[in-house]
Amino acid sequence: MSAFKNPPSLDRLVSALRVLPGVGPKSASRMAYHLLQRDKAGAERLARALDHALTELGQCACCNTFSETPLCALCADSSRDPSTLCVVEMPADVMTLEHTEGYQGRYFVLMGRLSPLDGIGPRDLPLEKLVAQADNGAVREVILATNFTAEGEATAHVLSTLLKPYGLQISRIARGMPVGGELEHTDLGTLVQALVERRQWEAGED
Amino acid sequence: MSAFKNPPSLDRLVSALRVLPGVGPKSASRMAYHLLQRDKAGAERLARALDHALTELGQCACCNTFSETPLCALCADSSRDPSTLCVVEMPADVMTLEHTEGYQGRYFVLMGRLSPLDGIGPRDLPLEKLVAQADNGAVREVILATNFTAEGEATAHVLSTLLKPYGLQISRIARGMPVGGELEHTDLGTLVQALVERRQWEAGED
Repeated sequence: MSAFKNPPSLDRLVSALRVLPGVGPKSASRMAYHLLQRDKAGAERLARALDHALTELGQCACCNTFSETPLCALCADSSRDPSTLCVVEMPADVMTLEHTEGYQGRYFVLMGRLSPLDGIGPRDLPLEKLVAQADNGAVREVILATNFTAEGEATAHVLSTLLKPYGLQISRIARGMPVGGELEHTDLGTLVQALVERRQWEAGED
Repeated sequence: MSAFKNPPSLDRLVSALRVLPGVGPKSASRMAYHLLQRDKAGAERLARALDHALTELGQCACCNTFSETPLCALCADSSRDPSTLCVVEMPADVMTLEHTEGYQGRYFVLMGRLSPLDGIGPRDLPLEKLVAQADNGAVREVILATNFTAEGEATAHVLSTLLKPYGLQISRIARGMPVGGELEHTDLGTLVQALVERRQWEAGED
């Protein structure tokens, strides 16, 4: 058989690309070929962005989100209500909630969720840091805003058990019909939850 | 609305990851979070592998495959038969053909295929380099071994037209039943081709 092999630097790039989630050997090869053949400038940009992020990015001492400064912009903002702490899975969830303009309190970002299948257990989440933030004397209510997926729900349950001893009000964001939603076009699981979690309708309420 | 934004180095990494084929904004975010949160060593390794590949890897002056040396190991091997040139799409195809141990000639690697949907036209393939190699005086036969996909077939047709004026024997690798294949378990397209491209059976032939 011929001794023909890939050049070592190509093999090394293909194997390095496999650190990316969801990238197997075939897509890693395809990515390497694409970068080297069609987008060297992009490859260079990616290498620099990785270096830059590794050097510059840390995590906010307070809410745990990615930040280039010890405190993120949101935690450094003294106009936020310190009595409410909203716990989310990822930084993107903070962005989404901020876009609603309906929340003025503070956040805590778990940077993940319990996910036994991915090997992420309670020890892999910053639970001590969360307890320290929740039990800082100023917080009165912790809103659990993890996703309504199986993992997000399990995470919310673990967090509520964890925070119970600290005498805080623990709440979970509501499940139910989407605003503007029609019964006919709502999935059955959501509809069942909307029935189960129905609330008393006070006269004059909108 | 809150002025809360992602840190610039995170945004920059997410956008740099989108140079990878098949990676949209959502998976780029997921990849960035994964690298920064769970695999900083992997991110560092990826940055170094990109740098190393960009510095070290060029293309073989002869067969056009990736190579760290001006001539790749295969083109530098004087025991290969210089009269046959096998044209393939990608370096991985060379590896596959070499594993068969059934070919002793030389290769030319297109590093792609015609693919109008991806914006890859004849000008994006190294056709001049291919003609120079095919018309070097030593080559007698060019074997077109692009894939039997729509793009690979179109590429083979364009190459055969391109090479026609040079008085070379042009061949295409055979389509048909796989070795050990059973009619019942062969897809219809392959079966039709195996019928259409049937060949005369000589007495005594295996």
